[in-house]
Amino acid sequence: MEYVTNALGRRVPTEVNGEPAHPYAGVGGLRPEGRRHGPPIRSCSDFPSSGDKRVGDLRTALERCGLRDGMTLSTHHHLRNGDRVALEALQTAASMGVRGLRWFPSASFPCHEPVIDLMRQGVVQRIEGSMNGPLGAFCSHGGMEGMGVLRSHGGRWQAIQDGEVHIDIAVIAAPAADAFGNGTGSQGPSACGSLGFALADSMYADHVIVVTDHLVPFPCVPWQIQGNHVDYVVEVESIGDPSLIVSGTTQMTKSPDRLLIAEYVARFVRDSGILRDGFSFQAGAGGIALAFAQFLRGMMVEAGVRARFIRGGSTKYLVDMLRDGLVDYILDGQTFDLAAVESIATDPRHVATSPFTSYNYHGKGNFASMVDAVVLGATEVDVHFNANVVTHSDGLLLHGIGGWQNCLEAGCTILAVPSFRDRIPVIVDEVTTITGPGELVDVVVTERGIAVNPRREDLLAALDGSDLPIRTIGEIQAEVEALVGGKPAKPSLTGEPVAVVKWVDGTVIDTVWRVTD
Amino acid sequence: MEYVTNALGRRVPTEVNGEPAHPYAGVGGLRPEGRRHGPPIRSCSDFPSSGDKRVGDLRTALERCGLRDGMTLSTHHHLRNGDRVALEALQTAASMGVRGLRWFPSASFPCHEPVIDLMRQGVVQRIEGSMNGPLGAFCSHGGMEGMGVLRSHGGRWQAIQDGEVHIDIAVIAAPAADAFGNGTGSQGPSACGSLGFALADSMYADHVIVVTDHLVPFPCVPWQIQGNHVDYVVEVESIGDPSLIVSGTTQMTKSPDRLLIAEYVARFVRDSGILRDGFSFQAGAGGIALAFAQFLRGMMVEAGVRARFIRGGSTKYLVDMLRDGLVDYILDGQTFDLAAVESIATDPRHVATSPFTSYNYHGKGNFASMVDAVVLGATEVDVHFNANVVTHSDGLLLHGIGGWQNCLEAGCTILAVPSFRDRIPVIVDEVTTITGPGELVDVVVTERGIAVNPRREDLLAALDGSDLPIRTIGEIQAEVEALVGGKPAKPSLTGEPVAVVKWVDGTVIDTVWRVTD
Repeated sequence: MEYVTNALGRRVPTEVNGEPAHPYAGVGGLRPEGRRHGPPIRSCSDFPSSGDKRVGDLRTALERCGLRDGMTLSTHHHLRNGDRVALEALQTAASMGVRGLRWFPSASFPCHEPVIDLMRQGVVQRIEGSMNGPLGAFCSHGGMEGMGVLRSHGGRWQAIQDGEVHIDIAVIAAPAADAFGNGTGSQGPSACGSLGFALADSMYADHVIVVTDHLVPFPCVPWQIQGNHVDYVVEVESIGDPSLIVSGTTQMTKSPDRLLIAEYVARFVRDSGILRDGFSFQAGAGGIALAFAQFLRGMMVEAGVRARFIRGGSTKYLVDMLRDGLVDYILDGQTFDLAAVESIATDPRHVATSPFTSYNYHGKGNFASMVDAVVLGATEVDVHFNANVVTHSDGLLLHGIGGWQNCLEAGCTILAVPSFRDRIPVIVDEVTTITGPGELVDVVVTERGIAVNPRREDLLAALDGSDLPIRTIGEIQAEVEALVGGKPAKPSLTGEPVAVVKWVDGTVIDTVWRVTD
Repeated sequence: MEYVTNALGRRVPTEVNGEPAHPYAGVGGLRPEGRRHGPPIRSCSDFPSSGDKRVGDLRTALERCGLRDGMTLSTHHHLRNGDRVALEALQTAASMGVRGLRWFPSASFPCHEPVIDLMRQGVVQRIEGSMNGPLGAFCSHGGMEGMGVLRSHGGRWQAIQDGEVHIDIAVIAAPAADAFGNGTGSQGPSACGSLGFALADSMYADHVIVVTDHLVPFPCVPWQIQGNHVDYVVEVESIGDPSLIVSGTTQMTKSPDRLLIAEYVARFVRDSGILRDGFSFQAGAGGIALAFAQFLRGMMVEAGVRARFIRGGSTKYLVDMLRDGLVDYILDGQTFDLAAVESIATDPRHVATSPFTSYNYHGKGNFASMVDAVVLGATEVDVHFNANVVTHSDGLLLHGIGGWQNCLEAGCTILAVPSFRDRIPVIVDEVTTITGPGELVDVVVTERGIAVNPRREDLLAALDGSDLPIRTIGEIQAEVEALVGGKPAKPSLTGEPVAVVKWVDGTVIDTVWRVTD
């Protein structure tokens, strides 16, 4: 294995899973060349004129798609920890005697833990995709035969679109579908809202299978997945556990420290002048993000301000803002609770988006850079504002990137983090794994103060005279270290790479190293 | 120029405009190979992070797209005879001194007649696209330097998607758009409803310019055209004449003969058993088609039947059926009158479609083949049911194909035609130009009787005992010839080809010959 040092000083391999890898070259540093991937040209003469593409079961569909050793099989994660389809597809492949698969999920969850057995058996050679929880730990301990490749939601689109990842067979769980393969996430017992993460798979894969537990007569409207891309439709009893697909209600934090962070973030957005008529923001479904949205809501009402759009994972809190006239549109990437699922199905102002519209860096712009302020988390952030979201300070790979990297392009990127967790400081000299470059992180908000990236003189000037606790990141770091008894211990890592983290343009921004057993 | 005889016995060139052409090989006779066209990979680093892609005028946009001699410039025809943008783009190119362009409209109209001057000046070398009226006549008389290429709506998508036609610059008139380039046809003073004909252009062209007279704040929802495909946005005073874009109201025929034809068609659909709960049909905006829909409506009410979907150009008559609960969905390809434009903008059951969903033959099926019955017109039909829609019996090219070829895949294809026009019989021994093969034409309905294609024994059996005037096509032909004084005169044609007609798979189904001056 050969290595080079990338533009952030990180040692990264020049080859990953037998294919050349390009080192991160700075923001906008890579000039892409070539043409987008073109899937095979098909003919209507090979498909039933009735439009009925149903086959008896998933095995039949996989066989007809020509599944064989070494292929790439993709799935999506809109069913989150309630998903039953991805595992079923891989286990069916195992029962067919297929080996050496690349599993290419948009993310994996604890419910996919049995894939560890399939990796031990050689059915799955590696996972390329976010590995949340046990699969990430398995990878960290060197259990995977191939190397993991972590990509953001936008990076996954980019990799598919640019032909870096060629999907042989996409298996798409659709909460509702017709026999032609038109699919939607907004109806049916397993409704999950948007299906945007599966869109690239449907467009670029050689073969596409739609699996549904809620078949509707043609046409299934709105067709988030277009049947014109679909080879086979499989009806199953259940694609997932509804109680694990969407929350009944999303919960905001009750921790006083985290509420304080959320309030600081909202005040920062207001006092820096970002909060104004027609502004936009993105906040996820985490506890701090939800509390931030509620604080911001109060400030918007007080100031008589209406936002133009909110991006991101949608929840009841955002739906309420839409219904109450505080925002014109929700541009939805993931739909997190029942209120949001109902809203996206019925309110034309609640619009399903995809990683193409929102995050793909190899397009003619994307929505992420048009967002005025985004509120994100991190496991670690260093004194140069470089941040980590994939590994913990012990080196274990436990999280995916999600849209995090893509969101860094927003007008103002705010990391809202507690200053320490379990007595381990979050602000460090050097993060375990760089997931995003400090030049794109504008503000770090902790319960002990707010650090503005010195590059953002405009923000510092706007906040001159503010009563917010603006401090340098070094000051906050020093205070926390004094409190918890010093800098965190270095993780105990081997020299063996187990995964790489790709930047939004497909370059390698950092390496994840195997932890010492 | 070399010729071959294709599967319908027609003499077609082996090369068109310097590129190889494949002769028609029968329905489903061509096995496509290769991969879809991939447009160039772009990077967000080359586009403004604010998302604002506006430039001062169309000339600036064309210059920045690198317009030069010999390029292909595409436009769409949703603004119909009210369009101001296509001509403006070509005249701007002329003012820049550019020559030898291929103009690739989804269709051209009489309002584009000034393009004749541009062809005489050498600015436009040829038109590939439907030529309605004066441009078709100009082509017929040999005025165009290059050869015309006529494609159906689905064939145009196929040609772009398969890389047969490479679009350098697409100029897309959008009745509403935001500065990022998201565009919709459903709002603004020049609203036209669906923008589906421009979709392939936006996805596959190297460069895309959106021209609008109604700029809205981001996001323009719904984005029928996605800003992520768009390079530049140009604001203009007016993209078209609203009174010529959509009709105030579409008019159905008042001719007793044509009303009789429409009634026969409706009765045929009913008596053959096609009219049943959950059925579907397509009918255009022509006078007979509208009258057919009204007759059918009455029969549906009488039978207590509800359709699942109606495909095709939408009008007040279809919108009324949607509102009155006679159909679940309108799957709209073109929006013809004010009532339909209002409906598609506000009713989620009135769904915009594209040639990809509806007509593309090189996909994994399409909607057209799922339609139970389609009612179409023709200029001529021969005794083998081969039909012509592009030339008149005098050989003049005066019409485009539209979706006509694509619709032939429906469960039951009905040509509704008067038995003669201006004392010229419509049923002939041999059509001037074959636009669709007789094996896909199931029924010819005239005011003198209904001829069922002998291949459709099922339809003949279903109508056994019916009181409809079922006759052979030869009987009707003979009766008309006796009435008008014999067979029509043969057109006076030269041996010089001026255009080819492509079949839905890109093969050449017939040649259009220059008329004798």
